[in-house]
Amino acid sequence: MNNKTTKKDEPVRFIPVGGFEEIGRNMMAFEYKEEIILIDMGLQFPEEETPGIDFIIPNTSYFEPKRQNIKAVILTHAHYDHIGAIPYLSKKLGNPPIYTTALTKEIINKRQEEFLNAPKLNIRIVKNGDVIKFSEHFEAKFFAVPHNIPDTTAVILRTPAGNFANLADVKIDYDAEGKPTNLEEFRAAAKEKIHVLFLDSTRAEAPGRSLSEKMVEKNLEELFQKAEGRIIIGTFASLLTRIAEIIKIAEKMGKKVAISGRSMKENIEISRNLGYIKPKKGTIVPIEDIHKYKDDKVMVLSTGAQGEPKASLMRISNGEHKYITIKPGDTVIFSSSVIPGNERSVQILKDNLARQGAIVYHSEIVDIHSSGHASQDELRDIIKIMNPKFFVPIHGYFFMRSQNALNGVESGVPKENILLPDNGQVVEITKTSAKITDKTIPASYVLVDGLGVGDVGEVVLRDRRLLAQEGMIVIIATVSRRDGRLVKNPDIISRGFIYLKENQKLLEDIRTKTRGIVSRIPRHQPLDGDYLKSLFRDQIGQFVYNKTNRRPMILPVIIEV
Amino acid sequence: MNNKTTKKDEPVRFIPVGGFEEIGRNMMAFEYKEEIILIDMGLQFPEEETPGIDFIIPNTSYFEPKRQNIKAVILTHAHYDHIGAIPYLSKKLGNPPIYTTALTKEIINKRQEEFLNAPKLNIRIVKNGDVIKFSEHFEAKFFAVPHNIPDTTAVILRTPAGNFANLADVKIDYDAEGKPTNLEEFRAAAKEKIHVLFLDSTRAEAPGRSLSEKMVEKNLEELFQKAEGRIIIGTFASLLTRIAEIIKIAEKMGKKVAISGRSMKENIEISRNLGYIKPKKGTIVPIEDIHKYKDDKVMVLSTGAQGEPKASLMRISNGEHKYITIKPGDTVIFSSSVIPGNERSVQILKDNLARQGAIVYHSEIVDIHSSGHASQDELRDIIKIMNPKFFVPIHGYFFMRSQNALNGVESGVPKENILLPDNGQVVEITKTSAKITDKTIPASYVLVDGLGVGDVGEVVLRDRRLLAQEGMIVIIATVSRRDGRLVKNPDIISRGFIYLKENQKLLEDIRTKTRGIVSRIPRHQPLDGDYLKSLFRDQIGQFVYNKTNRRPMILPVIIEV
Repeated sequence: MNNKTTKKDEPVRFIPVGGFEEIGRNMMAFEYKEEIILIDMGLQFPEEETPGIDFIIPNTSYFEPKRQNIKAVILTHAHYDHIGAIPYLSKKLGNPPIYTTALTKEIINKRQEEFLNAPKLNIRIVKNGDVIKFSEHFEAKFFAVPHNIPDTTAVILRTPAGNFANLADVKIDYDAEGKPTNLEEFRAAAKEKIHVLFLDSTRAEAPGRSLSEKMVEKNLEELFQKAEGRIIIGTFASLLTRIAEIIKIAEKMGKKVAISGRSMKENIEISRNLGYIKPKKGTIVPIEDIHKYKDDKVMVLSTGAQGEPKASLMRISNGEHKYITIKPGDTVIFSSSVIPGNERSVQILKDNLARQGAIVYHSEIVDIHSSGHASQDELRDIIKIMNPKFFVPIHGYFFMRSQNALNGVESGVPKENILLPDNGQVVEITKTSAKITDKTIPASYVLVDGLGVGDVGEVVLRDRRLLAQEGMIVIIATVSRRDGRLVKNPDIISRGFIYLKENQKLLEDIRTKTRGIVSRIPRHQPLDGDYLKSLFRDQIGQFVYNKTNRRPMILPVIIEV
Repeated sequence: MNNKTTKKDEPVRFIPVGGFEEIGRNMMAFEYKEEIILIDMGLQFPEEETPGIDFIIPNTSYFEPKRQNIKAVILTHAHYDHIGAIPYLSKKLGNPPIYTTALTKEIINKRQEEFLNAPKLNIRIVKNGDVIKFSEHFEAKFFAVPHNIPDTTAVILRTPAGNFANLADVKIDYDAEGKPTNLEEFRAAAKEKIHVLFLDSTRAEAPGRSLSEKMVEKNLEELFQKAEGRIIIGTFASLLTRIAEIIKIAEKMGKKVAISGRSMKENIEISRNLGYIKPKKGTIVPIEDIHKYKDDKVMVLSTGAQGEPKASLMRISNGEHKYITIKPGDTVIFSSSVIPGNERSVQILKDNLARQGAIVYHSEIVDIHSSGHASQDELRDIIKIMNPKFFVPIHGYFFMRSQNALNGVESGVPKENILLPDNGQVVEITKTSAKITDKTIPASYVLVDGLGVGDVGEVVLRDRRLLAQEGMIVIIATVSRRDGRLVKNPDIISRGFIYLKENQKLLEDIRTKTRGIVSRIPRHQPLDGDYLKSLFRDQIGQFVYNKTNRRPMILPVIIEV
């Protein structure tokens, strides 16, 4: 009896693995006894402080030795901040069973093909309403939520401590009259008592409600009506809900749609195969055929709305696209937001298009983009409907989550029942309580650079940042092993510091300084290479700083011959 | 007679020197015969593509040999994108006479003190309504316009071709009822027929009208009322109009104001000396005294709202500030927009403040910041009032200027009378015409890095970008001059590529590869160092790429002994 009570009170551990102190690399874990359930496995795009890095992924070192305990990986939807780390992590985690929707499965499998050594994934498709028992203590009910990619699934995880609702990336959908269309799904889900609600904080700071996708479509249609020539739409290949609608509108207006950009093509093909996009025969035409149609019958859906250097829209604007060059009368529509950091590339892209005579629209001019994430009033509505006992804001920096905590308070969740754990902090949840413990698991960044996962660490990054700021000078002193004297003039190599060919005087001064340092070393005593190097670093470094106010990295090399 | 007609028809040349293909480094030139008038001399902050650079400034190489022709430099206001290049350029341009307002003069002189070798500037103060004859053919009438720093002056340049109105950075001001307060000044200026209007495009894409500064103040006051503890306001030191208002509100509420941050202190002191800020005795208190007052009586004005690493607000949040540490109950208000590129630093700053218990507000949550630049409807109003024959949108990328051109069309300027020259393109203006010619002057970026102006060029920048992305490997082969054989094991140094201490195998492989390359060179023929270097670059580069998928810079050095 006593034993049973103890067991009953053993808490379910919730661990935010990634995505709680950044935007991206979303991953959460639930652990109870020998059972682990993971939700999402996303990547984060690199930051200014991580130059040269391809991606940042969650740190799974806690889970790797326990891989046999992983009973399920639930993937909520096919955006890379939720699925992107799979090729790097699935093998390390013992290729555990993945549960996700049909579209997500296809997109994951398509990407997996790019990774030659990655294992074949073990994916089981779930559908709206499915209930799946993963293990002795965990089962889940899946239900569809609206986001800007089809087949996004929320999940109610039934655990020994109660029901945990994770709503994924979510928004409220509205019909053309502005009435919410999907609250029923939330109400139905809320019928089973929600113990803990996990809810998206991406737009928790944004007042009001998000622009309805119907309004975006209406505005897009109006722009299409105005256009007299070809229409080129730049958007994310992942905004499949909008892409589907754009194709419908084009069809209604009797336009042909051509697709430009590999990811856009792949995603549309997958969506067609699954029936999420159902164009009539002849609506979608090969890009190489657009010249066969009148300009006002042509619409092009293109990748590259972020100004990515090699993407389709950039190639179109640079005259490097095989089938499209901009001409006056073309209308180019950016139906996407600008991701911070891309402002200048997008600006230059728009400049190039406008210079060639295109009429350019983007979402700062007209409302032709909406976020896929609920903003404040929507979040409050959702929290009220779900009516949880505990609330854990997920996705984003602390401040974003703390703003979402305020939404919780506004919606009636007691302040003390709202938890803001950081990455790696273990939260213990029982039937009556939920608290952040002082236990942690490793949660630092894991950096992906080329073929390397985790081999670029803070030392390498620090060097990259330094090199980018001030460049470097290599000073090579070839000295006699016998008496420590220079046997030849020092060799100086520099990159990223100053253009030495045009600054011969400085180069000569550095050489002279180097010779001076070596000559002052007392002769006939064993050469202390490390000491000599430190003299070079300090004295040449200071000399260069005095001359230029810059501190390039000084790399001394002593060659003894 | 014929001669006179020719002279009469000689065009005034307008040249956009900087600020027409970027945001910042604003500078324009007007040239007629042997006379040159310059307007503004700004700097641009560095971009992702210019790592390690301090500033980007206008290219004045066309004007330097003609320095004796420069009759006046007009400075419209004291923001660095309009005055920041002066310390770097004034000497090169022969220290020409500067005409500007009192506040601008003081701020320029204060900054000039930081440049030890810069000449004392030759500044003459102008006031609202002043008319000054600079030279035989140019005179100017100055008139005040509203922006977010006091003493912003517009100018009507009277030239042989007609009157050119340059409205500087400008917005429309509103009273508490939302009625425009300053249209009269524009109407008065427009009484003299405006031949060419030069008008700010910074916010030409933004629909509607800018938030009135009065509304910002009202919202700030409401936040102040809500705050129960200390109030810390982060804003730009250059937003002097708002700072003055905040001090007034604080006074009204019986709060003491302390200033934190050098630039904020300097600017407020200058403004006090000139009477733009008139606090009562005792309102402004030294920061070291704030502990003497009750928390609800304390307001701190601080720099660092962009998350700058060493600025006051960051030091406060890190616990490194001498007199302020955050405690629960503090309210921190960001009354400024986030400059693109600073999103993450600002996010982390907000995180740090919120974690310590501060209540944080910023302009995405409440309207507590307004731009100093007119948006679409305001621009259209201004254009209508000024009613110019020709219109040249200024400030910003091509697309921004082309959007402002649309504002011109909407306001009745014929499309063919709107000019969109790029940096360096010479525009010829006569009494009847204005056209972009095919003449150009040099307009490329001039980069300031430490003490160097212009010594960092594209080669150095390219190297910095490369080093930042993939790092570098120096391969030092010490070979015998006699037979070209290695006399010792190759030395390998690497930074920013991979942490070699943990990748000894790769290091050893590179050494082996290097030895292999040298050993395959036929012996007993003169050593061709360049050929050997190219072999290293190609073969080691490819080898490393195959192993890692990265392309670090390979720097081969051959030491012959």
